[in-house]
Amino acid sequence: MSDGKEPKRRGLRVDVRGRGFSDRVSLEVATEWIDAHSAVLGAEEIDVREAANRVLAADVKAARAVPAFDRAGIDGYAVRSGDTVGAGDYNPLELALAEAQDELPAASAAPIIAGERLPHGADAILPFELARVNGEATDIAALPAAGAQAAGAKLEVFGAVAEGLGVEREGQQVQAGTRLLEARRVLLPQDIGVLASLGIGRVPVARRPRVGILVGKPKPCGESGGQGDANSPMLRALVERDGGSVVAVVALESERRGFAIGYAADLMLVAGRSGTGWDDDAALTIAEAGELAIHGVALRPGGSAGMGSVGGAPVVLLPGDPLDCLSAYEMLAGRLIRRLGGRAPELPFAVVEAEVGRKIVSMIGVVDVCRVRLEGGKVEAIGSAESGGLASAMRADGFVVIPAPLEGYAPGARVRVYVYGSGGV
Amino acid sequence: MSDGKEPKRRGLRVDVRGRGFSDRVSLEVATEWIDAHSAVLGAEEIDVREAANRVLAADVKAARAVPAFDRAGIDGYAVRSGDTVGAGDYNPLELALAEAQDELPAASAAPIIAGERLPHGADAILPFELARVNGEATDIAALPAAGAQAAGAKLEVFGAVAEGLGVEREGQQVQAGTRLLEARRVLLPQDIGVLASLGIGRVPVARRPRVGILVGKPKPCGESGGQGDANSPMLRALVERDGGSVVAVVALESERRGFAIGYAADLMLVAGRSGTGWDDDAALTIAEAGELAIHGVALRPGGSAGMGSVGGAPVVLLPGDPLDCLSAYEMLAGRLIRRLGGRAPELPFAVVEAEVGRKIVSMIGVVDVCRVRLEGGKVEAIGSAESGGLASAMRADGFVVIPAPLEGYAPGARVRVYVYGSGGV
Repeated sequence: MSDGKEPKRRGLRVDVRGRGFSDRVSLEVATEWIDAHSAVLGAEEIDVREAANRVLAADVKAARAVPAFDRAGIDGYAVRSGDTVGAGDYNPLELALAEAQDELPAASAAPIIAGERLPHGADAILPFELARVNGEATDIAALPAAGAQAAGAKLEVFGAVAEGLGVEREGQQVQAGTRLLEARRVLLPQDIGVLASLGIGRVPVARRPRVGILVGKPKPCGESGGQGDANSPMLRALVERDGGSVVAVVALESERRGFAIGYAADLMLVAGRSGTGWDDDAALTIAEAGELAIHGVALRPGGSAGMGSVGGAPVVLLPGDPLDCLSAYEMLAGRLIRRLGGRAPELPFAVVEAEVGRKIVSMIGVVDVCRVRLEGGKVEAIGSAESGGLASAMRADGFVVIPAPLEGYAPGARVRVYVYGSGGV
Repeated sequence: MSDGKEPKRRGLRVDVRGRGFSDRVSLEVATEWIDAHSAVLGAEEIDVREAANRVLAADVKAARAVPAFDRAGIDGYAVRSGDTVGAGDYNPLELALAEAQDELPAASAAPIIAGERLPHGADAILPFELARVNGEATDIAALPAAGAQAAGAKLEVFGAVAEGLGVEREGQQVQAGTRLLEARRVLLPQDIGVLASLGIGRVPVARRPRVGILVGKPKPCGESGGQGDANSPMLRALVERDGGSVVAVVALESERRGFAIGYAADLMLVAGRSGTGWDDDAALTIAEAGELAIHGVALRPGGSAGMGSVGGAPVVLLPGDPLDCLSAYEMLAGRLIRRLGGRAPELPFAVVEAEVGRKIVSMIGVVDVCRVRLEGGKVEAIGSAESGGLASAMRADGFVVIPAPLEGYAPGARVRVYVYGSGGV
């Protein structure tokens, strides 16, 4: 800003370049901003076969019962259970082999397979294992699927069956008109199966958040040590993990003040140029193109993160250092994406509780995100807030979040470890 | 088999139709068969940007160190830490503002931004917050990125920095030649970032198992109660969850004896027609087209599952009832797919330990998979092995696996619950 005019928005000193952050907002305040700017996106109807892991946008009701009528749940013979009382291996009883028909005649058994309608009068299914036709194990070819072969055949019964055995009653699984699944449900494979079995072909789901990624100019590391763009491939993986889709990756030219949003994105991630160096102008760029609400969060790594909006879409400013970028994404941007997509906002990792080994050091007033390994059941820090780089997150089993008021954890303290690779949204 | 010849393979009585399963193999034996038929598939090279959640097929080494040279880890001024000793808010020290160059002159400070090479002689980075140029907070526009503006400028230093502060040493994150990631690693977003930052554009990953799904004729439920095909959409979601891809869904015509594998699949799932009804000929079809190794597993639901191979590819026979199909997939087929893809074979769910509420009943000699809810911290069964249908798995929070020798769990017993929707492979 060589023109001497320093942009200010809502009392925020925008230009931290060469000065540093005089006051960072707390993670709580930053989180409140995110929650205030992340109403669930609209719904879309999609094919139920593509709906696994998507978020239901409305309740789904069952238009009909499952089963739609009393039916056999297993293969065997439809019988009156009372007719089998007393039957055993050494005391076979005899029933007439009946044709499959609407009404089961008295003292008879009708072959039936799972899913077929139960004949009136029958109240149980005798498994094939417990019966023989004319003294032989059932000859499948002679079985009266719909025929007259059965005429005169006798069935020997070698065991009793209780009333209801093998029978599925109408509505036993799902009653007609009941709510099958609630809005906000993340659809599981079995949900897909139930929906498909009810003939529900399309379901309303929350739209996937469309994410634009703007990447700052790479760090001036020189030819030999030049670092490739770690952030945009990593952010793409993170966004997809959190249910979003990356619609564009654009290089943010440091010199350019304009904010190119030539495509429809529900939110923007700007990675890099967030810090205090002389060409760290991402925050200024956001302030000039829209509104910069927050720049600088009491968070390590990731303290130069910021938030604002451009063209009505929220923007999260992430640091260019890859570890800082990961940390700020996990603690801030990921929540925004999950909320926009209707998902649970919490960190998408399994949590295990474990005991601290060597002391873990933290800075008072800052939320420290500490990469850790679980070694022999103990939590051991890897690297520190200032060092270790992204490789420390690669080597870690997970991370511990140390609240701002604490200066760390003493050996033996029990802490919650968010386990990398464990979760899913 | 009306011709009187009954196919037998390896001592297995193939035709269970109308007879039932005289002897089912244990889940252990079925699992051994799976493990013997699931060598990890070959590798393929893919773009690192597409590699999240894929399984690394070989170790990846770092060709160079990260950082490649000593560099600044934060923005500020490169200094000799010794020159700052004693500096404080009320005792500022003065350093000469130097140009960025190879060697830091004595008693001076050179502006530097994160990622830049540390000048010789410097051993720490003084943050911008701790310094002012000529008594003013640093004017970013006047900062000597590469220029002569600095000539004669003085820097007031308001704090001491320790040796190494803000400095990243060559190889501090990753040393050249070290193993970065091990084969079998499921790649996390941060791994993608580290690989990309090292300029590694392609990585060798285990090929995704290609799965063909053959669906049996729908159950004869009649017009009104007809059930749609629940299994193939559900299986597709399960296969994808386990890292496989569905290459074809084919209807298995009950009448046809041939096994159409007109496409390259690494394994086949046959869903339906596995039972004891008169048109349950999927097992026979497998036996005639290839080898049927197992039919009938001591597992509930899912007891009519089987395994074999056709054309060199393993085939898993799954029951047509959707709940049985889900259970047999989870306990058998999923493991096969995960192993083929190089993933951990275990059930891909988070496990929580909890106390049984009402008694859970199981059958001795059979592994029971019991859908449960966690209600007020207690484990409560939903439905039973014989009833509840797929909807019970939809309503459940997870499931409990009851080993064959047990007849269930008494109230108060502590059990492991596999939590639906929690995992990921």
